[in-house]
Amino acid sequence: MSNPRFTKLLSQLPATVPFVGPETQERVRGAVFDARLGANECVFGPSPKAVAAMQAVSSEIWKYADPTSFELRTALAEHHNVEIENIVVGEGIDGLLGYLARMVVQEGDEIITSDGAYPTFNYHVTGYGGILHKVPYKDDHEDLDGLLEAAIKTDAKLVYFANPDNPMGTVHSAEAVQAFIDRLPNQCLLALDEAYIEFAPDGIALSIDVAKLNVIRFRTFSKGYGMAGARVGYAIGATDVILQFEKIRNHFGMNRAAQAGALAALEDQDWIEHIHNQIKYGRDRIGEIAQANGLSIIPSATNFVAIDCGRDSIFAKSVLSYLVSHGIFVRMPFVTPQDRCIRVSVGLEEDLILFADLLPKALEASSSAS
Amino acid sequence: MSNPRFTKLLSQLPATVPFVGPETQERVRGAVFDARLGANECVFGPSPKAVAAMQAVSSEIWKYADPTSFELRTALAEHHNVEIENIVVGEGIDGLLGYLARMVVQEGDEIITSDGAYPTFNYHVTGYGGILHKVPYKDDHEDLDGLLEAAIKTDAKLVYFANPDNPMGTVHSAEAVQAFIDRLPNQCLLALDEAYIEFAPDGIALSIDVAKLNVIRFRTFSKGYGMAGARVGYAIGATDVILQFEKIRNHFGMNRAAQAGALAALEDQDWIEHIHNQIKYGRDRIGEIAQANGLSIIPSATNFVAIDCGRDSIFAKSVLSYLVSHGIFVRMPFVTPQDRCIRVSVGLEEDLILFADLLPKALEASSSAS
Repeated sequence: MSNPRFTKLLSQLPATVPFVGPETQERVRGAVFDARLGANECVFGPSPKAVAAMQAVSSEIWKYADPTSFELRTALAEHHNVEIENIVVGEGIDGLLGYLARMVVQEGDEIITSDGAYPTFNYHVTGYGGILHKVPYKDDHEDLDGLLEAAIKTDAKLVYFANPDNPMGTVHSAEAVQAFIDRLPNQCLLALDEAYIEFAPDGIALSIDVAKLNVIRFRTFSKGYGMAGARVGYAIGATDVILQFEKIRNHFGMNRAAQAGALAALEDQDWIEHIHNQIKYGRDRIGEIAQANGLSIIPSATNFVAIDCGRDSIFAKSVLSYLVSHGIFVRMPFVTPQDRCIRVSVGLEEDLILFADLLPKALEASSSAS
Repeated sequence: MSNPRFTKLLSQLPATVPFVGPETQERVRGAVFDARLGANECVFGPSPKAVAAMQAVSSEIWKYADPTSFELRTALAEHHNVEIENIVVGEGIDGLLGYLARMVVQEGDEIITSDGAYPTFNYHVTGYGGILHKVPYKDDHEDLDGLLEAAIKTDAKLVYFANPDNPMGTVHSAEAVQAFIDRLPNQCLLALDEAYIEFAPDGIALSIDVAKLNVIRFRTFSKGYGMAGARVGYAIGATDVILQFEKIRNHFGMNRAAQAGALAALEDQDWIEHIHNQIKYGRDRIGEIAQANGLSIIPSATNFVAIDCGRDSIFAKSVLSYLVSHGIFVRMPFVTPQDRCIRVSVGLEEDLILFADLLPKALEASSSAS
C-alpha cells in the first residue's frame, strides 16, 4: 500500500494504442512517408471554406469553445432534420464511443462486435471491463444475422456495427440494416458507426428515426469532410439517449476552431459532392492498379479499398511491410481471412502513381521470400 | 427491460455542466457580451507564432494528429527537464482530470478536495461514483492542513489541490506545498492543478520531482499560453503513473493544429513574459477599480481577481447579475464565505474601462435593492 492505488480494472488493462500512427512509424524508419494511404484520411482535405473558418478562429483561440456546440448542433439538426436534442458533438467518434462504453458497460457485460472490426470500440469496451463477443465476418461483410444471434443469445446490452464497414469497405443495404434493427431486442443498444457514410452510394444510409431508443448513430467530420485532425464527431439518437452524454462527457473538450471549421464544412455540401467524385475515381484507380498486378479488390463504399493479395496473411503482411518500408503508409485487416488483404486509402494521383510503381515490386519481393 | 440499459451509476447522475458557457448566456440575454471576463481566459491571446502555426496546419487538418504527441511532449520534457515518459498530453486539464478519476476512483471511494474548488474535478469524481469530502477554505486559501487531515482520516486515494487557487487566486509557497507532500501518505495521490502557474510570482512553483509516485501535476496551454479554445493540457508525473493514461485515454483525441500551436507557443517564452506583465498590470487595474468603489480585493497570483463585495452572497450575486445583464461576463465563487466575492478575469484596457463604468452602478442597484 505504499504506492498510489489505481482501480482493480486499470491494473488488468494493457498500455496500448488502437492504432500506431504514421508519425511513429516515420520516426522508426527515419524518414517521412512519400504517400500517406493508411489511415483512411481524406487527402483532398476539407472545404476551403472550412480551412478559412479555422484560420479565422485561430486568432481568437484564447476563448473556450461553446461547451454546448450550439451552432454546430443546430446546423447538424437542420441537416438531418432532427432536433438539437438528438445530437451530441464530441472529440471524434473515438471519443463518443468511449463515452458510450462508459454509459453502458459494466464489468463482465458481454458486448457484441465483429471479429476484425474497429479496434477502438474494443479498446473502450475492454477499458470499462466489458467482455467482447466477436462475430466472424461473412464473405468480407459484417454478418448481420450473426450479430443479431449473438446479441440475443448473450442478452447483450450493446452491439457495434459499422456501415460502411472498416477495414473491408463493404456495406449492407438500408433495408437489410432496418430488418436487423427491427429484430434487435429493445433492451440491446445498436451503435451504428457511419463514419464512411458520405462515400457510400444511394440506398445505404438508413433514414434517421430518433424515436427509436435503441439505435445510436455515429458520424464524423474526419472522413467525408476531410477533417480528421480536427476531432469532430457526433452522435444522433433519441433525446433520452443523447441526454445521457451530458452526465459524463468532457463538456469543454472541443476545439473552438474545429467547431467553426465543421460548421463551414457542413454548409459546403458542394465540396462533399466534389470529394465523393474524387473518391470514386480514386477507388477505380486502385482497382485498376490491383488488376494490373493480377489481384482483385473488395468492392468498396468508402474512401479506401481492400486489395486481396491472393494468398495468406503472411504474404499480405510481407507486401505491406515492403510498401511501408519503401515509403507508402498503408494498413491491413487484423483478422483471418480478411488479413489476406492490404487496405489502401484513396490518395492523390501522385500518391497512386507511387503505389502503382511500388506494388509489383512488393509482390515480387514477397513471392520470392516465401 | 424494454429500453437500453445504462449503468446503474449513470442512472444516478444528473445531466449537468460544470460551467455554463458565455455563449449560452448570450443566447439567453439575446446579445453578445461587451467584455468577456468570466472564464479566466487570456484576452491577450497566444503568441502570434502559435496563431501562425495553427493557421498553417489548418490546411493539412485532413491528417490525424500524432496520437503520441511526440514533438510536443519532447519539447515539454525539455522545458521541464524531465523525460518524455513523464508527460501525457490531453484534451485540456479537464480531460486529463477525467482520465485520472477513471484511473483511481471506484464507487464509494472517498476523495478529497476543497469546498468551492474546481467543480470539473468534482464532476469527474462523482461521475465515477466517488464520494467527495470537501474541506473548507481558510482565510480564502485552500487549507493544506485541513486537506492533509482529511486525506489521512479517510485514507483517501486522491486529493485535489490547485496552486494558484481558483476561484480565489490565492497561493501557497513552494515550501508549504512541499511540506504538505512530505506529510501526505504514499498511497494517497495528489492531483496538483497548476493551471495558473505561469501567472504566479517566483517561489510558488514547486520544483519538479518525477521520482515521487504520488504527485501528478497538471498544466495547460489554456491560461498563460492563451489557448483555451485549443484544448491542450498536460500532466507531469512518475513514469509508472503517466503510463496508466495509455490504458484508457482517447489516443486520437488531440487536434492537430492545436498541438502545433502549443509547440510554437511553448517555444515563444518571451511572449509568456510579456503576457505575465500585462496580467500584472491588469490585476492592479482591477484592484484600483475595486478600491475606487470602496471594495477590497483578494491578492491574486492568477489572471483574475476576486473582489470582495463587502457583504453577503446575496449582495454579490446581485452585483454579478447586474454586470452580466449589462454586458459584462463575470463569475463568482460557489461557496460561502468566498461567495461574498465576484471573480473578474483580467481584460483588455477597453474591457476594464467598461467594468470600471459599470461596477458602481451594479453596486448602487444592488444596495438599493437589498
